[in-house]
Amino acid sequence: MTRRAVVLLSGGLDSTTCLAMAKAAGFEPVCLCVSYGQRHAVEIERARAVAQAFGVADFRVVTLGLRAIGGSALTADLEVPKDRPEGEMSHGIPSTYVPARNTLMLALALGLAEVVGAQDLYIGVNAVDYSGYPDCRPEFIRGFEQLAGLATRAGVEGGKFTVRAPLSGMSKADIIRAGMALGVDYGMTHSCYDPSPEGLACRRCDSCQLRAKGFREAGVADPTRYV
Amino acid sequence: MTRRAVVLLSGGLDSTTCLAMAKAAGFEPVCLCVSYGQRHAVEIERARAVAQAFGVADFRVVTLGLRAIGGSALTADLEVPKDRPEGEMSHGIPSTYVPARNTLMLALALGLAEVVGAQDLYIGVNAVDYSGYPDCRPEFIRGFEQLAGLATRAGVEGGKFTVRAPLSGMSKADIIRAGMALGVDYGMTHSCYDPSPEGLACRRCDSCQLRAKGFREAGVADPTRYV
Repeated sequence: MTRRAVVLLSGGLDSTTCLAMAKAAGFEPVCLCVSYGQRHAVEIERARAVAQAFGVADFRVVTLGLRAIGGSALTADLEVPKDRPEGEMSHGIPSTYVPARNTLMLALALGLAEVVGAQDLYIGVNAVDYSGYPDCRPEFIRGFEQLAGLATRAGVEGGKFTVRAPLSGMSKADIIRAGMALGVDYGMTHSCYDPSPEGLACRRCDSCQLRAKGFREAGVADPTRYV
Repeated sequence: MTRRAVVLLSGGLDSTTCLAMAKAAGFEPVCLCVSYGQRHAVEIERARAVAQAFGVADFRVVTLGLRAIGGSALTADLEVPKDRPEGEMSHGIPSTYVPARNTLMLALALGLAEVVGAQDLYIGVNAVDYSGYPDCRPEFIRGFEQLAGLATRAGVEGGKFTVRAPLSGMSKADIIRAGMALGVDYGMTHSCYDPSPEGLACRRCDSCQLRAKGFREAGVADPTRYV
């Protein structure tokens, strides 16, 4: 029987590449898309389309009302930073940091893994191009893996969870090259923090800038639809 | 300045006692009620009333669509177990276990703690009367505390989070006695897993049985409104 893996899928460049990698590793992916009140709700439809393109049979959307907590440019009425020079992006934790976001994402993936009998969780965190988020660091990933064993019925019964973060040490250009080799169509993916109502990318937020730089460095035409 | 603490408040007997303890310890409580698609949605209104009775200025409700994940009698269309003898209740993990529930609850509390500048999280887990849930064990609580330092902006900047689980080693009767000494009106609280549409307790689920036993053992009249 094919082993299942839960893949956190936002419909962005990184998580879509993760999905392709999970399939290539021989897993049957169960995709989890978390709708947490981020501005870029367009992501959910992209995520669904991406999952469909990869023939995923089990795609789930969990809504999570993080606007009641706020504290981030993605979940409160704060300005998304624009046109930041690269030197500035690589220092400190940006205002787009969502408090405890990846702890929440992995906790949801863990719950779903228990329900579907998966022991592997895929998350598209990336610590190279954008090291500002504390919960993208490898030590956080290892810490969560340890907690997972203590937190669950499956853990108590002797199961062991593995959190796979295959993009962790890769540059954006590396990720794009790896994804293209696995047949990812990046034209379907979406990375902008502040898209237009039609879902077009702003070109100016940190996420758009890093994505565009990745395509440039990979020597690949950027398929993003910008405003 | 009074230090803030985030208190996970369901409106049940345990979390209400925790709130009273947080206040008695001198904290300014910020209450977080998570509406996760559990059958007992009546809890949210009870939680709000309890917070008001304790003069809590900041009460927040976060919705979390756990029905998309399911896997529990509280979040899927499974039967809530009734009339289980005590010997049976104390063995194994019950079907009311919600996969990764307390990891999720604490992750949400952690996010809110970062936003409001709190370093203390209160959770009403209890490992004595009802030891079946893996994520009520002290080793899970310690594990989460460690993860919290790795997961957050506050942790990276040197802050340290403390997860307070003051009920952990107490029996239900001890909890009731402690709460009454702090002025808790248990008539406002709600514990049933399967209440009537009017919010009356079923008297037969594990939670009702353990609560009733607690009042008997504490020698206190049970103020619960049953069907």
